[in-house]
Amino acid sequence: MLKIWCNTQFSGKALTLLMEGVSPHHLVFAPQLSASNLAPAEADPELLTAHIAFGQPDPACILQSERLRWIQLTSAGYTRYDTAEFRAAVDEEGMIVTNSSQVYAGPGAEHVLAFMLAHGRRLPQALDIQRADRTWPTLPFRAQGRLLKGQNVVVLGFGAIGRRLVELLAPFKANITALRRHTRGHESVETIPEEQLEAALAKADHVVNLLPETAVTRGFMSANRFASMKPGAAFYNIGRGTTIDQEALLKALNSRTISGAYLDVTDPEPLPAEHPLWSAPNCLITPHMAGGYDAEPEALVEHFIDNLNQYITDSPMKDRVM
Amino acid sequence: MLKIWCNTQFSGKALTLLMEGVSPHHLVFAPQLSASNLAPAEADPELLTAHIAFGQPDPACILQSERLRWIQLTSAGYTRYDTAEFRAAVDEEGMIVTNSSQVYAGPGAEHVLAFMLAHGRRLPQALDIQRADRTWPTLPFRAQGRLLKGQNVVVLGFGAIGRRLVELLAPFKANITALRRHTRGHESVETIPEEQLEAALAKADHVVNLLPETAVTRGFMSANRFASMKPGAAFYNIGRGTTIDQEALLKALNSRTISGAYLDVTDPEPLPAEHPLWSAPNCLITPHMAGGYDAEPEALVEHFIDNLNQYITDSPMKDRVM
Repeated sequence: MLKIWCNTQFSGKALTLLMEGVSPHHLVFAPQLSASNLAPAEADPELLTAHIAFGQPDPACILQSERLRWIQLTSAGYTRYDTAEFRAAVDEEGMIVTNSSQVYAGPGAEHVLAFMLAHGRRLPQALDIQRADRTWPTLPFRAQGRLLKGQNVVVLGFGAIGRRLVELLAPFKANITALRRHTRGHESVETIPEEQLEAALAKADHVVNLLPETAVTRGFMSANRFASMKPGAAFYNIGRGTTIDQEALLKALNSRTISGAYLDVTDPEPLPAEHPLWSAPNCLITPHMAGGYDAEPEALVEHFIDNLNQYITDSPMKDRVM
Repeated sequence: MLKIWCNTQFSGKALTLLMEGVSPHHLVFAPQLSASNLAPAEADPELLTAHIAFGQPDPACILQSERLRWIQLTSAGYTRYDTAEFRAAVDEEGMIVTNSSQVYAGPGAEHVLAFMLAHGRRLPQALDIQRADRTWPTLPFRAQGRLLKGQNVVVLGFGAIGRRLVELLAPFKANITALRRHTRGHESVETIPEEQLEAALAKADHVVNLLPETAVTRGFMSANRFASMKPGAAFYNIGRGTTIDQEALLKALNSRTISGAYLDVTDPEPLPAEHPLWSAPNCLITPHMAGGYDAEPEALVEHFIDNLNQYITDSPMKDRVM
């Protein structure tokens, strides 16, 4: 009989799935529940006696626990756990840490493609006209339209979202290049190491940033890298806001050296109402929703129950990150 | 030596391609040129002595000509030529009429998919917030997000754009049903006849109208058919504005029985600034640009030169409509 601790707020169908799926094990909920993965985790003494944690457990509390064997995060990102101290403890205790990447791969990739097609078909510009003087600029809009077909796409960070994006882009016959720190040789697209990035940026029509926040990705899209981008290219960020130099992005937008930016993540979040990115030309911002969709809670629970069965039968865990 | 008449305004690379491609034949331009396929055609006596017409020739003028053998329209639609009198003359004279469907298939399908993904990822709603109070509704937007994966899509009219749309949708694993008046048995998706449309509309999450304007398609999406749609479904029109009952669409939007409408075509065009569709809830309008993209003029010319070679070598013509 395992004790499973959870601090994510589930309701309705997802809650039923969770309660049925963990049976006959013992499920305890933290006193502070949150539906957002981004809310700071709070300490809870119940976590100290749990075998399994599901949600966003407090890292300090995990370090104090002597019983915890496996942690499944409800996020794809795991910045708050990605410290030398935490990794050392995980190694020493033989703990397993998994995340929920595969839950976010589909919606994340659909969000990126929505951004890319909105750019090519000038949807934000059309809506701005619709909300203003309602003109009918058929000829200039047709001439400014772009096809994804045959365009060069550079993807920064090639995990679950990147792989799904490559699947979705396949029928467009775009030319995709992925930056991956450690290439594994069996990627579905051409991968390049960091040394070749500037050359790739200079040729890319679309630069898609999927990087998580880590010590090495902070500020990764630097002013120099924005300056390396092909004039007229578009930039997309559904990774983390901290992985780009926002001032440099703003400059590239204001000077029209790039043709658009589509941001689902910013630094900070929420982006303050007075921040200049909100009104920068050709910049569309969505409120950190890329991974979300109506069935997200059920999908998170199903992924956890799947992994619980893997854990119990001593089988390989999905989305293991530590 | 053939005389080729053209009333489409080309410039730059497209013009060079045309002039080089028709050589050694005789190319004449009409005095009135237009870059828009929707501009009314004007009579031109030069057309009477041409063997081939490329552009949007005046139908009455075509009927007077005794020399014209082949007409290639620069549009996909051919409503102004689709009369009993015109068809009879074409049959009698053994004339060939081709259109430019294959030029518009790619951009048309990308435009539809841009609309569908923008709907699922709430891009218009995000931009409205960005232009207003700049709040950060992460949780409601995530819960309202949708995946195309697994959704039911009904496509009205299954020609070149529909086929390309099916290719683009393939990796999403959506369930696609196409309405086609004459099913040919080798379509890439399930096709249904008109009698089964109401049942299909009742199950569809997305209804994509690609119908051209003809005597039988006018008002095709009637008030009854809008009323048959599944509550919460989305409607898309990149066919022709006249093929739908706009009053019924407006009612469905205002009562929120459908969750959105995405229109590239309206009746009339331009849509007058005071028309209520501009401000209907969850309605995004683009200015009849779906088929357009930066390389459209070159693609139109390349398609014509391809067909000219087919014509000269007595080979099957592409995109033949009469």
